[in-house]
Amino acid sequence: MTSNKMRLCVLGFGAVGQGLAKVVLMKHEELIEKYGIDLEITAISDRSGAAINPNGLDLQQALDTKEKTGKIKDYPEYGVSGVDGVEVLDKAEYDCLVEATPTNIDDGQPTQTHILKAMNDKKDVVTSNKGPLALNFKTLIETARENNVKFRFEASVGGTMPVINLARESLAGNNIHSVQGILNGTTNYILSRMANEGTEYEPTLKEAQELGIAETNPYQDVEGLDAACKIVIIANSLMGWDVTLDDVSREGISGISSNAVKLALKDGYLIKLVAEANDGKLRVAPMLVKQGSPFAVNGTLNVITLKTDLSEDVTVVGVGAGSIETASAILSDIISIGKNNNN
Amino acid sequence: MTSNKMRLCVLGFGAVGQGLAKVVLMKHEELIEKYGIDLEITAISDRSGAAINPNGLDLQQALDTKEKTGKIKDYPEYGVSGVDGVEVLDKAEYDCLVEATPTNIDDGQPTQTHILKAMNDKKDVVTSNKGPLALNFKTLIETARENNVKFRFEASVGGTMPVINLARESLAGNNIHSVQGILNGTTNYILSRMANEGTEYEPTLKEAQELGIAETNPYQDVEGLDAACKIVIIANSLMGWDVTLDDVSREGISGISSNAVKLALKDGYLIKLVAEANDGKLRVAPMLVKQGSPFAVNGTLNVITLKTDLSEDVTVVGVGAGSIETASAILSDIISIGKNNNN
Repeated sequence: MTSNKMRLCVLGFGAVGQGLAKVVLMKHEELIEKYGIDLEITAISDRSGAAINPNGLDLQQALDTKEKTGKIKDYPEYGVSGVDGVEVLDKAEYDCLVEATPTNIDDGQPTQTHILKAMNDKKDVVTSNKGPLALNFKTLIETARENNVKFRFEASVGGTMPVINLARESLAGNNIHSVQGILNGTTNYILSRMANEGTEYEPTLKEAQELGIAETNPYQDVEGLDAACKIVIIANSLMGWDVTLDDVSREGISGISSNAVKLALKDGYLIKLVAEANDGKLRVAPMLVKQGSPFAVNGTLNVITLKTDLSEDVTVVGVGAGSIETASAILSDIISIGKNNNN
Repeated sequence: MTSNKMRLCVLGFGAVGQGLAKVVLMKHEELIEKYGIDLEITAISDRSGAAINPNGLDLQQALDTKEKTGKIKDYPEYGVSGVDGVEVLDKAEYDCLVEATPTNIDDGQPTQTHILKAMNDKKDVVTSNKGPLALNFKTLIETARENNVKFRFEASVGGTMPVINLARESLAGNNIHSVQGILNGTTNYILSRMANEGTEYEPTLKEAQELGIAETNPYQDVEGLDAACKIVIIANSLMGWDVTLDDVSREGISGISSNAVKLALKDGYLIKLVAEANDGKLRVAPMLVKQGSPFAVNGTLNVITLKTDLSEDVTVVGVGAGSIETASAILSDIISIGKNNNN
């Protein structure tokens, strides 16, 4: 098979960016063979600066550098310090931006600026970043359309659990009426342990933090903001709504007592943090789900049910987070763009 | 959006073929708008003959004719009697064959002849028919490749539950290591009722037959042949195996007593007919699944778990049968071919 080079500029070199570098290292030959896509990462940035080489970076070296010094600017020969994302986009030679900087749900920056600049420079964009998608979906979609570039964001919703592309490809032809899901792994882990072990919220959260499952500042997860961002992205992209984070009625899990969990259990129910988009309304709240139903998933798993006009209910269960797992969702978007461009 | 005509020849006008006609009627304008695909059915065949019009059949009239006389040959003006599938393919003007005749798992005929002829005539093919896929997968795939035509068969596995396209698109980049699923709705219905109501196998089967959920001759379902065909198709298409129906070790559900079901329940398990492809081996057999696990699905639902290298386990639950539902899977294949050809 003949293969076409596809050059990636990766902004953000945390868990997701490093996961992508590992996955590209692992799958490089296979992607050439299977899809005719010869992936090359020509730029990587983090807070310290960037590494930029128009002929492609050595990904093992990039990962080693990050592990040793924590700073990609220390990459030998091609490391640059003190450049920001916009400067990296100007200096790099690339076909597709992978935006993997940390999510900012206050104003979506600097991700939004990065994405819009890349689109206006006629580059395709793949992102795992929920911020600008939850705040300014329409602007992003319209800018992509005006510039005739591809824009994909499977990894922003449910990590490696396929949702966006599932609806787009496998359920093409269906209209999606409503969506209901457990879209946050941290809260699902806490609620699962409270149900399985009869513990209270606070010590369970603390344990989750010690295990690295909950963040030091767990606010966005436990108060439902993360799930709210995801349901907004799903409603906009799969059902054609025009909504933002402010439109979500939201309640977190910090008020749930072990007593409430026990009472629910006794009646055959579990308490889960459920996000739903139904009948024009968006909601994230603790809800009762039946034991033995597909929503009774344990641990950090995510689950989503799409209610469709032709295919009835389709439910997917998968891992909602993780470095390699999220990178795999990004990779599926990259392949979809690359296959299209090869046609 | 400019739209391209895509002309379908539909062989077989039972539940699936009629479902497709209904779905095309319902979605015609929407498909033009969303995908630029102007679907037209130019030929429909059943046992009685065919209706063939190069300018497109009136689908409401085709459905009415079938309902009234049971025979598509009675379609006004364009009805033809006594033609077989091959003759219809010769007479019809079409771009894509939809093969929806009844499944024959003894020799895959006449479906296999239809599919190969269409491919050799440089037509794309979509099918819901398991027979030739479970018996001669390689021949079909190679003939499609040699003729540079598209070949899709999402509807042959799990009805509307997305499996093949899910793995191909949403999990692109992943290798699938093994697969485990409940792939037959009839047996799942019988086993669910035996567990929920404590009934014996024979009367439960009889009730399922009265409800139209089990066929008059339930052999292929209850002895695991239907599930065996599906796991063969999955192993060949998603994992690159080269296997046929003979390679499946197979045990059905007719030997399961209500006592065995009750004992399993007491220990927290359900008995389900599970199909798996793992470590080079194919198996369909009653197995114990944990209550509360994703495999504890009730009624006629299907479920499948794909074990992947990057995305861990991905599980899908959906409706495994039904006229409109299966037609919806066919439609997603048609759209995928149409989008590709429009590029």
